[in-house]
Amino acid sequence: MNIYLDHVATNPLHPEVLEAMMPYFREHYGNPLSLYEPGMKAREAIETARAATASLINAKPKEIVFTASGAESNNFAVKGIAYANQNKGKHVIVSKIEHHSVLNTARFLEKQGFAVTYLPVDKYGTVNPADIEKAITKETILISVIHASPEIGTIQPIEEIGRIARQKGVIFHTDAVASVGNIPVDVQSLNADLVSFTAHQFYGPKGAAALYVKEGVRIVPLVYGGIQEGGRRAGTENVPAIVGMGRAAELAKRDLKKRVDHVRALRDKIIDCALKIDKALLTGHPEKRLPGHASFVVEYIEGEAMLLLLAAKGIYSASGSACSSKALKASPVLISIGIPAHVAQGSVVFTLGETITEDDITYFTEIFPAVISRLREISPYAKGWEGTEGPTCTAQK
Amino acid sequence: MNIYLDHVATNPLHPEVLEAMMPYFREHYGNPLSLYEPGMKAREAIETARAATASLINAKPKEIVFTASGAESNNFAVKGIAYANQNKGKHVIVSKIEHHSVLNTARFLEKQGFAVTYLPVDKYGTVNPADIEKAITKETILISVIHASPEIGTIQPIEEIGRIARQKGVIFHTDAVASVGNIPVDVQSLNADLVSFTAHQFYGPKGAAALYVKEGVRIVPLVYGGIQEGGRRAGTENVPAIVGMGRAAELAKRDLKKRVDHVRALRDKIIDCALKIDKALLTGHPEKRLPGHASFVVEYIEGEAMLLLLAAKGIYSASGSACSSKALKASPVLISIGIPAHVAQGSVVFTLGETITEDDITYFTEIFPAVISRLREISPYAKGWEGTEGPTCTAQK
Repeated sequence: MNIYLDHVATNPLHPEVLEAMMPYFREHYGNPLSLYEPGMKAREAIETARAATASLINAKPKEIVFTASGAESNNFAVKGIAYANQNKGKHVIVSKIEHHSVLNTARFLEKQGFAVTYLPVDKYGTVNPADIEKAITKETILISVIHASPEIGTIQPIEEIGRIARQKGVIFHTDAVASVGNIPVDVQSLNADLVSFTAHQFYGPKGAAALYVKEGVRIVPLVYGGIQEGGRRAGTENVPAIVGMGRAAELAKRDLKKRVDHVRALRDKIIDCALKIDKALLTGHPEKRLPGHASFVVEYIEGEAMLLLLAAKGIYSASGSACSSKALKASPVLISIGIPAHVAQGSVVFTLGETITEDDITYFTEIFPAVISRLREISPYAKGWEGTEGPTCTAQK
Repeated sequence: MNIYLDHVATNPLHPEVLEAMMPYFREHYGNPLSLYEPGMKAREAIETARAATASLINAKPKEIVFTASGAESNNFAVKGIAYANQNKGKHVIVSKIEHHSVLNTARFLEKQGFAVTYLPVDKYGTVNPADIEKAITKETILISVIHASPEIGTIQPIEEIGRIARQKGVIFHTDAVASVGNIPVDVQSLNADLVSFTAHQFYGPKGAAALYVKEGVRIVPLVYGGIQEGGRRAGTENVPAIVGMGRAAELAKRDLKKRVDHVRALRDKIIDCALKIDKALLTGHPEKRLPGHASFVVEYIEGEAMLLLLAAKGIYSASGSACSSKALKASPVLISIGIPAHVAQGSVVFTLGETITEDDITYFTEIFPAVISRLREISPYAKGWEGTEGPTCTAQK
């Protein structure tokens, strides 16, 4: 039995998405900028995909710039706004729990003479909007706060942060890579000027992502060159992937409520199970979190060993964001919510998708507590541990 | 009859390449950074593709950084080297016939306080290596010269430019997007430190490209974030596209000689035909040019009309690089080789691929002169023209 519980890392491609992409691999290979029939077919397909992608987040088609990844969208947003506005001021505000693609871009900007404020979060990983308001100066040109954390699932009060940014006349970007396609995201009610999101988070292909750029917001390109994407992002368009993103956006819009209800019910069973384990703690906000997201720290457990033992039982999970899984450091996100470094080692994240079944979760509730028991028996980390007997979830069912 | 003669804009996907990609759409969807089986399969596939891609240009696998487009590779190279070396100096040298993705990046750097020298070219579009030598100052940190022009086909004396750069201790980048996979490219003999290339130029997928970064050359990322690509380019890897690039590289390496011979023979027939037309001029170098590349300016002809009429006859061609086709300006490349602006309007580029046949070219030689005659009859551009009677190619065969 194999159960993929790492949907926040990436998702399988929806079969209907692949089907939509295939003609653009096989027949309509023309360059969308060319003037003849095969190119025009590709161009039309891109514009159809743009409309569908825009519709998913309640944007206008021309406000969508296609990119190749959520990371590219984040780099584009943060650098692009910084360079477009450096004559107005050189101060940027981000939260401490941004994705590396925002944090490391902010650090790059610091080297280029920008000042960056890194805002703290509370124990649930939530940014306090009042802190944002206090951090804004006359020099502030950009605020960037992640919509939902891939590591701890917490959803930020983006509407309120956006409202403050608007009042103060500061451009506001949110990294919505983990949320768009998984919960309703409406750029109008978020009060956001820029929103990053990526297709493979909602059963679309890898290699297609987008940055929403509100009409009238000026941005400097990250990738200069030809006139693709209205001159905002050069490079021959990855037509099949863009078509796939459009189709995935249509499916996400159509199925969103069903998907949310499905994963939330199963997610709650995972949380119920895990919280019966001694010294296991839910990370992130208990309610304001992604519906398919369950994240924990389990004391006296080494996270990598836990992942490997779970994987040996066919349960695929992560210790944090995919980008940091291999970095072998305590997650800065967990540290920022006050988890001690030695406890942060025992981090595990389970994220669900639409093909996960009740049976899968029943199996999970048998395996997970047993894996924890086993690890505590053998692990040097567990020496200080004098907890209960082996925990179970299924017994108490 | 449809004849695609715009292979420099993009190429159809090779069926074997698509076949290699399919399992990574259907089964092996895991995130390559994850620690479990589905992710590891994806990671292994990327490393196999990296080795094949490196082998095509005689590089080491670790010298290959995958990107999403040739434009991204060029932006990454030029900005990445500039930022990595700005403490040593802030002077960059490029040629006037670089692709927009280099030229516009150079202009961006000028706004950030860098100085850029734009080197002229001769009537064939060739950079004089002696000019490079003269332009180098103590502040020079980067030279970027395109390997082969997509607009006029000219191949630059890259080996010699590279030798000068090495002697002077200046990092050297070449945009080899139009050449890699179409002619032999060996990064060792080119004396290049960085080489941009893209898969869809050699029957690979759109959305996969690479930057060769010579071992030991330090570069600042364009896309910050996770630890993908050795920390040099973040973002969840586009696994199917990368796999496709690897397979396309294998095929290109295997078939290169055959492909070169095939397109050169047919290309020469196109040139023979076109040069029989009065006031038609071959642009670019007559010998040192891409084997599948034939480019002309035809006086008293408006290029867009020519493309549209050719397309109506099933012949798909371009007026210049795909990125400038829609820009409706006289090509800066043609201006830089001394073509007057009004003549540059009559630009047309035919580029061949491995599936083009003798019959296709026979058809071409019937249609092309007839299209020119027709346009000169009806076009206001042709008012000043008092040339010969309608040209033919087939009659003289």
